[in-house]
Amino acid sequence: MTHYLRSRHDGILIGVGTAVADDPGLNCRIAGVGGYGGEGLNGQPRPVVIDPSLKWNFSADSKLFQMCREGRGRAPWIVTTAKEAPAEKDALIKAYGGQFITMDIPSSDSGSHCMDWCQLLRILRMNGLRSVMIEGGAQIINSLLQPPYMALIDRVILTIAPTWLGQGGVVVSPARRLDDDGKPMSAARLKNVQWHPFGEDVVLCGEVTI
Amino acid sequence: MTHYLRSRHDGILIGVGTAVADDPGLNCRIAGVGGYGGEGLNGQPRPVVIDPSLKWNFSADSKLFQMCREGRGRAPWIVTTAKEAPAEKDALIKAYGGQFITMDIPSSDSGSHCMDWCQLLRILRMNGLRSVMIEGGAQIINSLLQPPYMALIDRVILTIAPTWLGQGGVVVSPARRLDDDGKPMSAARLKNVQWHPFGEDVVLCGEVTI
Repeated sequence: MTHYLRSRHDGILIGVGTAVADDPGLNCRIAGVGGYGGEGLNGQPRPVVIDPSLKWNFSADSKLFQMCREGRGRAPWIVTTAKEAPAEKDALIKAYGGQFITMDIPSSDSGSHCMDWCQLLRILRMNGLRSVMIEGGAQIINSLLQPPYMALIDRVILTIAPTWLGQGGVVVSPARRLDDDGKPMSAARLKNVQWHPFGEDVVLCGEVTI
Repeated sequence: MTHYLRSRHDGILIGVGTAVADDPGLNCRIAGVGGYGGEGLNGQPRPVVIDPSLKWNFSADSKLFQMCREGRGRAPWIVTTAKEAPAEKDALIKAYGGQFITMDIPSSDSGSHCMDWCQLLRILRMNGLRSVMIEGGAQIINSLLQPPYMALIDRVILTIAPTWLGQGGVVVSPARRLDDDGKPMSAARLKNVQWHPFGEDVVLCGEVTI
């Protein structure tokens, strides 16, 4: 499912937390795309990593660059507020055909970054991406699910596993909304919904609406 | 769905929070059960309300007693720590064929009640209930989802709507579990899972496992 979706988008986007935690390959592994029976890098999406403060300490050994060497994936674009990336990292990423992209990402009072998704998507479009699949993690999704940006989302695709993660985990949701009486109401919902069971899990697809 | 399930259980159980908030009918409204084309009260489950401190200020006007008067539902059993219920309420509930059931429900240091589900189910069985559907709310479900009681649950049936409730809502889940390295792991999951889409929602059924 993930790999089919990756093949249908020009770019796939993650936050630095996911990059650091998972060392992801961020390529598409279905038969017929480049590196898996297909020509060149056809059908391989561009990985985009949001890393405002350059916390991702990647190297040529990172899985993503292994994929590049094997002709099975594209080099990443790293979106950062840093005006200049470290020379060594910049050389590595350029050697593989990727790039650092500098953009202004303001910080809130609490120090967290406030992505302007309109501007980000505009920059990605200017660089040639016509579609982007935003994979996560929680902080990225929560940032995108804010009311000013919700309308940018064409479609939500969500896998639900029959698992309790336990109390106190990260909640992925828009902020709470209150009705005129001050009572909590639905923060957002999906319309034109489809549910597709896959083994023990279910995949939910829909369009965001308030 | 709810009413079909209610027809298949001897009892349906809620906490006092739900009783106060919803003034629920707690009967079964499908064709063929008592009051809906069937004989007497056949197929009508016994409502059980967990109300340790007698906070539910019901009266003959409460929806549940309206249902009783119409021959469409049974009078409740109210489980409480109070040794004696107020005479007026006791008379009302008995007139409709219900009862107060006194049981010891210890309080934690923080003042919340710690239900012993083994004892409660034993008491309900002694009073004639062979099965009980535990409907909610969140506090009741969270209490039952604690490891010592999970094994009492035959089956979990859960409706998921494609709605974000917003940050800061009540989380219904067992407590977090950590693996040997101190990292969070699955707190519990369901096995023998079924997913049934119903319109915009999906119903998840399964058996609890750790």
